[in-house]
Amino acid sequence: MNELNTPLRTIMTPGPVEVDPRVLRAMSTPILGQFDPEFTKIMNENMAMIRELYQTKNHWAYPIDGTSRSGLEAVIASLIQPGDNVLIPIFGRFGHLFAEICERYGALIHTIECPWGEVFDPEDIISEIDRVKPKFVTLVHGETSTGRMQPLEKVGHACRERDVILIVDAVATIGGADVKVDDWCLDAVIGGAQKCLSVPSGIAPITYNDRVEKIILSRKKVERGIATEDDNKQFTSSPIRSNYFDLSQLQDYWSERRLNHHTEATTMNYALREGLRLILEEGLEARFQRHKLHEKALVAGIEAMGLTLFGDPTCKMPTVTCVNVPKGVDPDAVRNTLLNEFGIEIAGSFGSLQGKIWRIGTMGYSCRKENVLFVLAGLEATLIQQGFAVKRGEALQAALQVYALQKKQEVIG
Amino acid sequence: MNELNTPLRTIMTPGPVEVDPRVLRAMSTPILGQFDPEFTKIMNENMAMIRELYQTKNHWAYPIDGTSRSGLEAVIASLIQPGDNVLIPIFGRFGHLFAEICERYGALIHTIECPWGEVFDPEDIISEIDRVKPKFVTLVHGETSTGRMQPLEKVGHACRERDVILIVDAVATIGGADVKVDDWCLDAVIGGAQKCLSVPSGIAPITYNDRVEKIILSRKKVERGIATEDDNKQFTSSPIRSNYFDLSQLQDYWSERRLNHHTEATTMNYALREGLRLILEEGLEARFQRHKLHEKALVAGIEAMGLTLFGDPTCKMPTVTCVNVPKGVDPDAVRNTLLNEFGIEIAGSFGSLQGKIWRIGTMGYSCRKENVLFVLAGLEATLIQQGFAVKRGEALQAALQVYALQKKQEVIG
Repeated sequence: MNELNTPLRTIMTPGPVEVDPRVLRAMSTPILGQFDPEFTKIMNENMAMIRELYQTKNHWAYPIDGTSRSGLEAVIASLIQPGDNVLIPIFGRFGHLFAEICERYGALIHTIECPWGEVFDPEDIISEIDRVKPKFVTLVHGETSTGRMQPLEKVGHACRERDVILIVDAVATIGGADVKVDDWCLDAVIGGAQKCLSVPSGIAPITYNDRVEKIILSRKKVERGIATEDDNKQFTSSPIRSNYFDLSQLQDYWSERRLNHHTEATTMNYALREGLRLILEEGLEARFQRHKLHEKALVAGIEAMGLTLFGDPTCKMPTVTCVNVPKGVDPDAVRNTLLNEFGIEIAGSFGSLQGKIWRIGTMGYSCRKENVLFVLAGLEATLIQQGFAVKRGEALQAALQVYALQKKQEVIG
Repeated sequence: MNELNTPLRTIMTPGPVEVDPRVLRAMSTPILGQFDPEFTKIMNENMAMIRELYQTKNHWAYPIDGTSRSGLEAVIASLIQPGDNVLIPIFGRFGHLFAEICERYGALIHTIECPWGEVFDPEDIISEIDRVKPKFVTLVHGETSTGRMQPLEKVGHACRERDVILIVDAVATIGGADVKVDDWCLDAVIGGAQKCLSVPSGIAPITYNDRVEKIILSRKKVERGIATEDDNKQFTSSPIRSNYFDLSQLQDYWSERRLNHHTEATTMNYALREGLRLILEEGLEARFQRHKLHEKALVAGIEAMGLTLFGDPTCKMPTVTCVNVPKGVDPDAVRNTLLNEFGIEIAGSFGSLQGKIWRIGTMGYSCRKENVLFVLAGLEATLIQQGFAVKRGEALQAALQVYALQKKQEVIG
């Protein structure tokens, strides 16, 4: 087998995106043992930085060792007991994933759907909460399959007033847009590494508050083989079904007790640490503004070349831009040419949107000027090849104008 | 937050162990998208090398994105249905872990135990199989908590004859000792990355045969949100309870269909690829011999300084050496001095062995001459500090003699 030889890509999908070179370098650091005080210090530092990322005072803020959906499943497995009522508003693929996971853990699921490309009016969700009276609501913040972002604040406050637990999938927004866990009254939130954090997939930072912890502790069971007599005195009528995703055990591992569970994924923690450092160095607000700037330039270029955007613009994700595939254009041929000739990756979509839209991500380290300009140039050239009547040369001019205007405003201050 | 600054350790625990520098370098490679043909090629290459590692012709051989126990849980979650009879012979902590996970997935568990420090006579397991008539047997191959290795071959053949499915935890042996999946009739096997593969924790290579696949396929359900009409026609009365660990869905992702599930952990796959390459370059047999050589040197040194080994020597793991803590010596003080003065990490143990033994690993990249010599030197010095009447200067001489003898034999050929 040959040495690893990978081409260098311009990755403009909604994830995984390009990893920041500083994160890549951190990953080549020799490892420490899992109970080495120098490593547990790093675990604590990651907790502190995850809190800042989530703008929360929650004590519990730590990563799950798996991809983003492992974070979703850990929260659901630890919270939802068979027969629990869960309200799941669905506005794209990842709402369905919530339904799928909740169902597997025995929830009675109540789904409401809105057309792909839109989000819910918060009032509609709230009246459904009043009708269904669920114990939990799950909500996707940024739905990458459609590029829409659901406003959370009103729903969060309504849930808190009604003593409903709100679980939020912020996999695609965290680090790229505001996720105000405390201000918005979000009870448990799951973030993704491989999107706006620019860390490789394989670790999922989560946070949850004491309302959530209370449920988790009521289901606690210390692991066979390491439980003490005192541990065994604890009884629960509804143990958590998964061991790997048992947050009551993971909490013990991430607490000063350091009770052994799995072997913490050392290098992924190094990567996460560097990714979080980069975000906090840049500053959350500055980072969100950067994402908005490059989105603006991308959208200006897309529209200038004569393409149209998919979906309701009032709830567009700042980090994902969905483009309608023009009539007569083969969507996969365009993606293949971009990849094979330009080394640029953009995404298609799922389900009813498959073949109808392209999705272009502007996330984390991938979200930078040269990438935006290159994807616009590549897309224009590819569409010309496909025979589409693109407005030649306009896209880059429009994008450059956005950047120039920004520079001017910075000078004026 | 400061830049990552970690001390360099000599890690002589039963995992996680030092990562091979070539693996660390591979991890700083810029990533590819998950459906990039250049990446799916790497996925296929990893499958091919995992097959060689497991000495199997099984088609299914791929990693789970999580730590070793995520591999255990994926296999159990996908195979065990509520009410299934499972026989679990326990000879240490990780047998209990099997029991814990099986119980959580609704199995009727039948455990047999033997004293920690021993393994089972295969005939005893086989008669228990005949008595209990289980659908599954789970067995730990290398039990790091006690340093013992359970012979698998007879049990494997007995299970096959009786149409029982044998699930094996080879987390601590794979890459360090023979695990002959096909010859020994092992149906599903889980390996660890952070032990004899010298890859960081966070990815778990598994393999399983068509007997296992048949059960998995009978429980198959394509995910909500991406299922086609044809997919939805399939019906199962006993769906797999976990989404993240649903091997029927993971199979689709690791097949040419490439049906999207999680976002594959790119960098951990790069690491695994390099770790597997290193093993196959060295050659399985040469690698196992190397592990035995360093074990021999370590044991010679330990005994020469006047310490005794824990457990039945006839079933000792070649990659873990358990040392009795001498009377009057504080086990944690010794470990702390080793770490703080020498930068050497060795391990304690769990449950009834806590405080009674030290465990020294000789695994993967950590399993090399200078590490063995340094841990012996450090241990001797630390014991002298503790006032233990060590036979001064003997340990290194005994170890060096083992290495010299080996060199002589190589010259003679």
